Amino acid sequence: MVVKGHVSLVGAGPGDPGLLTRIAVARLRAADLVLYDALIGEGILKYARKAQRFFVGKRAGRHAMSQEAIHALMIRAARRGREVVRLKGGDPFVFGRGGEEALALQHAGIPYDVVPGITSAVAAPAAAGIPVTHRGVASAFLVVSGHDEKTFSSAIHQLQPNGVTVVVLMGLGRSEAIACQLIDRGWSRGTPAAIVADASRPQQQVWRGTLDDLARETVEFNGDGPATLVIGDVVAIGMRVDAESVEPKVAGLHGPRT
Amino acid sequence: MVVKGHVSLVGAGPGDPGLLTRIAVARLRAADLVLYDALIGEGILKYARKAQRFFVGKRAGRHAMSQEAIHALMIRAARRGREVVRLKGGDPFVFGRGGEEALALQHAGIPYDVVPGITSAVAAPAAAGIPVTHRGVASAFLVVSGHDEKTFSSAIHQLQPNGVTVVVLMGLGRSEAIACQLIDRGWSRGTPAAIVADASRPQQQVWRGTLDDLARETVEFNGDGPATLVIGDVVAIGMRVDAESVEPKVAGLHGPRT
Repeated sequence: MVVKGHVSLVGAGPGDPGLLTRIAVARLRAADLVLYDALIGEGILKYARKAQRFFVGKRAGRHAMSQEAIHALMIRAARRGREVVRLKGGDPFVFGRGGEEALALQHAGIPYDVVPGITSAVAAPAAAGIPVTHRGVASAFLVVSGHDEKTFSSAIHQLQPNGVTVVVLMGLGRSEAIACQLIDRGWSRGTPAAIVADASRPQQQVWRGTLDDLARETVEFNGDGPATLVIGDVVAIGMRVDAESVEPKVAGLHGPRT
Repeated sequence: MVVKGHVSLVGAGPGDPGLLTRIAVARLRAADLVLYDALIGEGILKYARKAQRFFVGKRAGRHAMSQEAIHALMIRAARRGREVVRLKGGDPFVFGRGGEEALALQHAGIPYDVVPGITSAVAAPAAAGIPVTHRGVASAFLVVSGHDEKTFSSAIHQLQPNGVTVVVLMGLGRSEAIACQLIDRGWSRGTPAAIVADASRPQQQVWRGTLDDLARETVEFNGDGPATLVIGDVVAIGMRVDAESVEPKVAGLHGPRT
């Protein structure tokens, strides 16, 4: 069977529609069907002018669609000849289950491609003035998911304390536990730490302190946007970057924030 | 003194002009002066229609401009009221010395911002069908520069062998030494490894093998484009992605490759 449709696994970046890539915008414009996750805003979805939109993420009080159901939906639509965009926050291959979706499409014989997106692992610290690497301070960084205690613990045990910058995605709800795990593992209590919530969005909020602070206090933000933890000496470099720093401020670029 | 000019530290992504962000394109269009590194192609520079362009990177047989000279050039131009774009491959804060440049601008009182770019650390493996994370295979990844033996060695000693995906930027010239260092450190000789050269560009080339292969053979590519090493079980997942996968193929998006 020749499949006439096509699926693009597209990274939407950290949230600011201005941080979409040109290819991501083109794919959205050409899409017949967009399957999108939580936290993808209208400023991004609006590019999918002619597409049917289907929310497949988690919503308060409801289960997300299962991964298998998402695969089946993409495959069925592509077999019907539709141009499908599977739209994910950040990058599809950084904890996005993009690899699983790509393999499912491949096994089903569906033509697909992958469009990388700006990952929050780098862009969220940057939006708070924190470079993940800095000469003389950090020459490597580790990116890990904080969502699951066992997985996080296993990753952190691969690492000597205080050696490299650690960036934790999806760890806000477990930030005290994460700080305690690092301290137990031998990290210095005084290690600088920051949490960037809703990075690159108008409502961006930043918390700064130390691992010790993080272990003692529950950090809370307004809203339930995504948050990125960054731990290491790069946090204390002292760069000032406004939350508005990635704001388009030139003529001809119209996002929802201009 | 009120400075009327402005500097944007802009990430250009891995090479494909379609992987520029919308803000990067807008900044280039508005620029009076663009200071760009090696490996930034005409397909990207063409957006800076009205700008003077200044190459500040390394070119065969010549020294690059010193970091201090680049700082001075940006600061002088901004004080003269110019809109300056400092254009870097990948992301400005992933081994891009963006942090140093931001601090220099801050100390000089120059208004500036940082526009993240797609880092090759994630996009180069992706372009070869390799996700840096994959459920049940790798739940974290480390990004390190391979350029300097001592720095690389120090970073690798922070890490237990075969625990997480390792992505090495700027390591092609030292790939045998890097493989030997990892094996000496206890990494399994059979660990899957890949090198992606000129990722996302028409001339993309991919080498695949094991750490043992890498330690024994000198991997060479046509041209002198950037290369990304990726080491870990994610390399063997078996996803097929064409080099053309990030190619814009819809109407209305005109890059040099369409």
